[in-house]
Amino acid sequence: MSRLKNDALLRALLREPTEFTPIWLMRQAGRYLPEYRETRKRAGSFLALCKTPALACEVTLQPLARFNLDAAILFSDILTVPDAMGLGLYFVEGEGPKFERPLAHEWEIRNLSVPDPSIDLRYVLDAVDEIRRALDGSVPLIGFAGSPWTLACYMVEGGSSEDYRKVKTLAYTRPDLMHHILETVARAVTVYLNAQIEAGAQAVMVFDSWGGTLSDAAWRGFSLPYLQKIADGLIRERDGRRVPSIVFTKGGGLWLDALAGSGFDAVGLDWAIDIGRAREQVGGRVALQGNLDPAVLFAEPEGVAYEARKVLDAFGPHPGHVFNLGHGISQHTPPENVTALVDAVHAYNHKIKAE
Amino acid sequence: MSRLKNDALLRALLREPTEFTPIWLMRQAGRYLPEYRETRKRAGSFLALCKTPALACEVTLQPLARFNLDAAILFSDILTVPDAMGLGLYFVEGEGPKFERPLAHEWEIRNLSVPDPSIDLRYVLDAVDEIRRALDGSVPLIGFAGSPWTLACYMVEGGSSEDYRKVKTLAYTRPDLMHHILETVARAVTVYLNAQIEAGAQAVMVFDSWGGTLSDAAWRGFSLPYLQKIADGLIRERDGRRVPSIVFTKGGGLWLDALAGSGFDAVGLDWAIDIGRAREQVGGRVALQGNLDPAVLFAEPEGVAYEARKVLDAFGPHPGHVFNLGHGISQHTPPENVTALVDAVHAYNHKIKAE
Repeated sequence: MSRLKNDALLRALLREPTEFTPIWLMRQAGRYLPEYRETRKRAGSFLALCKTPALACEVTLQPLARFNLDAAILFSDILTVPDAMGLGLYFVEGEGPKFERPLAHEWEIRNLSVPDPSIDLRYVLDAVDEIRRALDGSVPLIGFAGSPWTLACYMVEGGSSEDYRKVKTLAYTRPDLMHHILETVARAVTVYLNAQIEAGAQAVMVFDSWGGTLSDAAWRGFSLPYLQKIADGLIRERDGRRVPSIVFTKGGGLWLDALAGSGFDAVGLDWAIDIGRAREQVGGRVALQGNLDPAVLFAEPEGVAYEARKVLDAFGPHPGHVFNLGHGISQHTPPENVTALVDAVHAYNHKIKAE
Repeated sequence: MSRLKNDALLRALLREPTEFTPIWLMRQAGRYLPEYRETRKRAGSFLALCKTPALACEVTLQPLARFNLDAAILFSDILTVPDAMGLGLYFVEGEGPKFERPLAHEWEIRNLSVPDPSIDLRYVLDAVDEIRRALDGSVPLIGFAGSPWTLACYMVEGGSSEDYRKVKTLAYTRPDLMHHILETVARAVTVYLNAQIEAGAQAVMVFDSWGGTLSDAAWRGFSLPYLQKIADGLIRERDGRRVPSIVFTKGGGLWLDALAGSGFDAVGLDWAIDIGRAREQVGGRVALQGNLDPAVLFAEPEGVAYEARKVLDAFGPHPGHVFNLGHGISQHTPPENVTALVDAVHAYNHKIKAE
């Protein structure tokens, strides 16, 4: 593999100094880009897009062709893991993901097993390999997976949920079964992320997207321990270089101390927390990623730049910041505002350096 | 008016000692009760239920007939205020509230004026009066309103929203207009709450339900100042008795210090924060209300009691706790679990006292 030309992301995630704050955006390959919608139409379905390495590679690269981003993130879906576990993932237009065989009975839970990524998730590893070759050392590639609690939500609910009634009922009535699911999924996620690293992912991120739906005590019981297990099991070095890891609990601002001690190199923040206060709290323990409200991208370009500078000001002139949104970019985002954002972030840092 | 037989709620909200922890539940008069669904059907529509004092009184009292609750809360909707401001509230089955005339143009925003509750919201004040007479001094009656930011979300979006795109776009592009809306709504909410107090509400609560959708900086700019304005303008005493006030920002755990200093007597908590940690943080500044995850009520009665005791243990044997859920009770809640909850909360405290 060729040497990385822009490794600012990897260095920032390890709290090493960088000449500018690197930026990438959650869901940067997505529906707000007309070229994505074009490829998506050609693929026939979202799932076909995920499962066809050449197309997954194509959409992964699209935002990099438009914007001066400092990382690529594998185009995929967190639910490929439960799909590989046999639950039968499908998508209904306008309703989001669904499972044909959600976990409803104890025997289904007891039957869960850890898939072999080299067989059951081969298409993801092939996409990683193809993207790495296409990137040709320009920027690093981030791999990712869902957290065990987040995947369990979908696996038990059978799809999206407003109140997480089924999965929380299971957690509060049969914690033994809940922990069995989480334990199995944590092992599946660990081997899956390690397979992505072996295939070429240069950093990995765990999305604890529904962690924030839990109470403080329940998150510490049902999500945090499984995040720690994943962190413990990750490959830490590859080709002589550290592979940084990121954990992101949406709505997890109150649990920052626990997240900073969970074994990941960096913690993603949503926009509810002041990133300056967060930096003071975590000190030198972890890097921070975030945390602009994606809704800022609905404003005018000057407003976008102004709000981006506020985040950068709040973090201050320290190493260990990766700029990002506090959640995935909205499909309603005008692409020109992404240009304004990326340029503002890069320009700001050069100014700091020049002072 | 007759003297209050059970004033534990009012005393706990003022951090005075009580013999037991008082409990009430957000949305306690609601769809999980078959008798509510019956009255709702008879009313013809949700809005007719809100606008007919006799029916609003009927459903307000229903949960008190079933459960040993320590407060009644006025049955109404936070959107009656923008409705009285002329936006035309209506409900579409399965889609939630909508406005016929959401705020789309600058002239509509400039035209906003503060309604006179004694005329435009007469039906609410009549309901308060009727409920007070029906309660006959058994437990106190809580009045309520939405926070300016929360009401503005609906007024600009025209209904519920997933991403608050319109209202946040306005906030980030035309903060002057946003502040004009918030200023006007804050005045409307203040006179409305004071009218409820004059009509007989013995405590009041402000629901900052969508405050948690804002970034730290945006919440401090667009929600907090207007909560403070309301607190500043509230009638503090009525019939020789203090009228306690409660503020509840859903998702506001990170802003607890600001909320504790915003001028209200008590702060409502959702379930993301450990209530013991919250109590240490606020010290003697405010009482706390909360904070069981409503999903706990989907468990078995013993599980409900166990989780309720965990909240009580976390708060500890201090004055100033009102037990509640961290959000409105779900329509899918088995009523017998509410019995288990109320009994567990009351039993726990008697045990504490006996030790």
